[in-house]
Amino acid sequence: MGSKPIMGFPATSQDDYQLNVTRILQHAARSFGRQEVVSIKLDGSRSRFTYAQTYGRVKRLANALTTIGAGLGDRIGVLDWNDHRHLEAYYGIPGIGAVLLLLNIRLTPADLAYVVNHAETKFILVDETLIPLAEAIAGQCPTVKGFVILTDKKLSEINTKLSPIYHYETLLNEAKEEIEWPNLDERSAYGACYTTGTTGRPKGVYYSHRNVCLHAMSIGTNAEMTSRDCYYQLVPMFHALGWGTPHAAFIIGVKYVLPGMYNIMDLGSLAEPLVSEGVTVSAGAPALFMPMLEYIRNLDKKPDLTGARFLSGASEPSLTLMKDYFNLTGAEIVHAYGATETTPLVTINKIKPWLEKELSDVEKWDLKRKQGYPVVGLDVKIVDHTEKEVPHDGKSPGEILIRGPWITGSYYNAPGSETQFTKDGYWRSGDAGTMDAEGYIKITDRVKDLIKSGGEWISSVDMENETMAHPAVMEAAVAGVAHPKWEERPVVLAVIRPEHKGKVTKEDIVAHLAKKFAKWQLPDEVVFVDAIPKTSVGKFDKKVIRAQYKDIYL
Amino acid sequence: MGSKPIMGFPATSQDDYQLNVTRILQHAARSFGRQEVVSIKLDGSRSRFTYAQTYGRVKRLANALTTIGAGLGDRIGVLDWNDHRHLEAYYGIPGIGAVLLLLNIRLTPADLAYVVNHAETKFILVDETLIPLAEAIAGQCPTVKGFVILTDKKLSEINTKLSPIYHYETLLNEAKEEIEWPNLDERSAYGACYTTGTTGRPKGVYYSHRNVCLHAMSIGTNAEMTSRDCYYQLVPMFHALGWGTPHAAFIIGVKYVLPGMYNIMDLGSLAEPLVSEGVTVSAGAPALFMPMLEYIRNLDKKPDLTGARFLSGASEPSLTLMKDYFNLTGAEIVHAYGATETTPLVTINKIKPWLEKELSDVEKWDLKRKQGYPVVGLDVKIVDHTEKEVPHDGKSPGEILIRGPWITGSYYNAPGSETQFTKDGYWRSGDAGTMDAEGYIKITDRVKDLIKSGGEWISSVDMENETMAHPAVMEAAVAGVAHPKWEERPVVLAVIRPEHKGKVTKEDIVAHLAKKFAKWQLPDEVVFVDAIPKTSVGKFDKKVIRAQYKDIYL
Repeated sequence: MGSKPIMGFPATSQDDYQLNVTRILQHAARSFGRQEVVSIKLDGSRSRFTYAQTYGRVKRLANALTTIGAGLGDRIGVLDWNDHRHLEAYYGIPGIGAVLLLLNIRLTPADLAYVVNHAETKFILVDETLIPLAEAIAGQCPTVKGFVILTDKKLSEINTKLSPIYHYETLLNEAKEEIEWPNLDERSAYGACYTTGTTGRPKGVYYSHRNVCLHAMSIGTNAEMTSRDCYYQLVPMFHALGWGTPHAAFIIGVKYVLPGMYNIMDLGSLAEPLVSEGVTVSAGAPALFMPMLEYIRNLDKKPDLTGARFLSGASEPSLTLMKDYFNLTGAEIVHAYGATETTPLVTINKIKPWLEKELSDVEKWDLKRKQGYPVVGLDVKIVDHTEKEVPHDGKSPGEILIRGPWITGSYYNAPGSETQFTKDGYWRSGDAGTMDAEGYIKITDRVKDLIKSGGEWISSVDMENETMAHPAVMEAAVAGVAHPKWEERPVVLAVIRPEHKGKVTKEDIVAHLAKKFAKWQLPDEVVFVDAIPKTSVGKFDKKVIRAQYKDIYL
Repeated sequence: MGSKPIMGFPATSQDDYQLNVTRILQHAARSFGRQEVVSIKLDGSRSRFTYAQTYGRVKRLANALTTIGAGLGDRIGVLDWNDHRHLEAYYGIPGIGAVLLLLNIRLTPADLAYVVNHAETKFILVDETLIPLAEAIAGQCPTVKGFVILTDKKLSEINTKLSPIYHYETLLNEAKEEIEWPNLDERSAYGACYTTGTTGRPKGVYYSHRNVCLHAMSIGTNAEMTSRDCYYQLVPMFHALGWGTPHAAFIIGVKYVLPGMYNIMDLGSLAEPLVSEGVTVSAGAPALFMPMLEYIRNLDKKPDLTGARFLSGASEPSLTLMKDYFNLTGAEIVHAYGATETTPLVTINKIKPWLEKELSDVEKWDLKRKQGYPVVGLDVKIVDHTEKEVPHDGKSPGEILIRGPWITGSYYNAPGSETQFTKDGYWRSGDAGTMDAEGYIKITDRVKDLIKSGGEWISSVDMENETMAHPAVMEAAVAGVAHPKWEERPVVLAVIRPEHKGKVTKEDIVAHLAKKFAKWQLPDEVVFVDAIPKTSVGKFDKKVIRAQYKDIYL
């Protein structure tokens, strides 16, 4: 279905009615007006707004933005944690036809300035705690006409060299609430995220209103949320539109909880609201769920989270993580897959009813580690290097290609990036994986992270998981590095659990791996490290690892 | 948002990717290939196809239709019960770009021929049991080039004057399964239903692929279905696209059960598959749920349907019906509202979490009788005769206006019907109702069914419900008929339960109504009848009632 569309018999439907994200919040305020948005503040207290109040603030924000000179098509950046003002920006900025540019607070100032300039950003909304980051780039970003400070404090209490500055709450207080929303073409950009790939400059994905609306419906359906649920926005809202849950939640009418600023050294305490707010659904990366689990493990009384579902993406959750959540709290980790380019939902892993009956517990846990089956609305195929589809046998690997209404069709103003798309419109994910007869996809590697050893492939991810299955290993990464004879050979980096330090040897790890891997695949080197280099999104940074160990086999 | 759309900043999304209903079944076959479609046959046995097999049959049907000469834009009628072939037609006909024309088997031959001719129908698929109906119109329908007989029998066993005829199963056997689906413009008509209003000729609503896809997502979300559910297709598939559940079910991946032909004199036995197939979700009208409840009432062992949700539309379910289902089986009747023109989902009645806490049981039951709050994606307003929105106070009545992607914007080739739409694109439902502060809508009457008595309005529906709350009354209808002094006055028609016959008087009914209605509103006449005249969709036929009793007050 990649050719030019052909028109059949005309319909009488209102097909000119435009999909628009603002309508989601309008709906939420209309049909779930008393539902709550809870946001944890800097001092630990919580702001509580109803949906109706949130919509009121969004209307004021929209009017205020117009007042300071923002308008149709302008790109407006946001530098913020997951809090209620970030959520308001999610609706207020696109509501007036401007573009919500989500800025990753973990980028280096150089990359951040690159993104701000590439998007020709007009205004930046910045949380008081992130002013230093904004200050670091302000001088390099000539298109930026002003900064709006997000704070509970008065403007006079804020010390900054940024100029000109506006005070978010004052703007809202002075704005009127009545608004006539523009009727936007649904293909207008709603917002943008830039990829944080490990190679090259960040690339811009500009999501249309149509894209966001259709994706949000899909998230709502696949996360199986109802208005009795309480959703906890763990995924940073600057990653892939916060995984679409800031929209899906308002379609469904759930109670919506935002963690606010958190300390990277104390991620565990992110677990506290699970109980205090009654969270039943969340989404995040294992990098967050792992420390939260440690926090829970140390509680005298384990929380009862029976029935809760935590969607997990970005990297594969370990078996231990999934089992321990379930055994300690009753919560289920639901593996899902996607990327910035896919808004992000592509696959979700639920055990199908018949497999629930047929599989043993061991087989079910094993299945839950796969990325899942494709959701409705998308075309997904796995192809070999000749672009031919591989058999759905759970063994034949290939690159995952994806097409559909919430998949990007290009990168904004990025010459040369056209090669990441096929002629019939699929996005090349760069992920290597398999599909089984039931449609479950298993990502094995990045295509470029497959280790090419003597003309054969070794899966670095398989080896990582197997290394992490060793009881002494807390975390492990595997990369292919140059080898004079075999082209590449794997090197294993392992972080040993404190209580096992000094008690485990490289030979122990290799012997452990030998149970699953052929002899020629085994690593020649296992390096014990204190931490594994990671990208800003918490993925292993293979580029850095390969650079650090490039000489190990030479 | 009714003006011409304006374009904002361009997005990079695949906005030219067309929404297409065929993709729903493709998805179902891919991600839920082993899920079941169960269809009850004429002899009571059941056919069981997997989703993958169903998709295989649909591909063969599409190829077969092309072979006999059907193609892009052709209207192809279906005269069938809810069975697996009807379901296959739901995907096979629109798949090739033809229009699925759903023919109401309860229409008079005159109305049916009108619809077939108005649509310029090229082929008709007809179930063997409905051949007499097809024969009754065949001579009057010159555009029809042939009939495809839906049967488990051989063609030689079918006696008919229809010509030319094709045998569905033979066509499928002879067709190949490989197919290249056309890439249809999403605004192409997927299918059509004709309204069965009580006034005027049937009017055609032609649903686009876009319309159907967006509506199906909404049904999936609002019915709160998961792949663990079993859906029972009670609503006739010739009504408003079967209420969108033949699409939503395949988005979600539920087990899907079709009742096949049923005897209008034995509707109760429709309850049997609830237990034998493990139904958890269904949708239908009180006219079906009522006899099913009687059937259940007579069972020695009541089925445990705890957690099951039965969406109920077309007319208001009585309090007794809802309570008895819940108390006898644990199943919940969920009131919903819509029309042929709205695909149909407009509102759904779920008790919001905070109301669940705040309301007493009596108040909750009372609330459940309302039609519910509007679903996401639609604009809904209630306006007085000056087109001004009425207050959301649960008291101020007005006409319900609806706009959105699954609302019709016109009637096909129906000059004069433009008055049923407002300038800013709302469809005038003709329903009178109120909205309360929580957004719950209560339909009180058809705008034209309000009884105008001495310059005031009396709600015929309120009076019907109150009459039916009398323990001796099984069913009751109220209509306004001409009165020399008061313009109109209400007349009550009541069907008395067998065990109460002869033991209740008109005065008893009026005394019962006096508890709720003002004296001037009380009916002057209560007529005991054996049955209430109904339309083909099971609604009270007020036109017939008014005609029968037009002289009662003269």
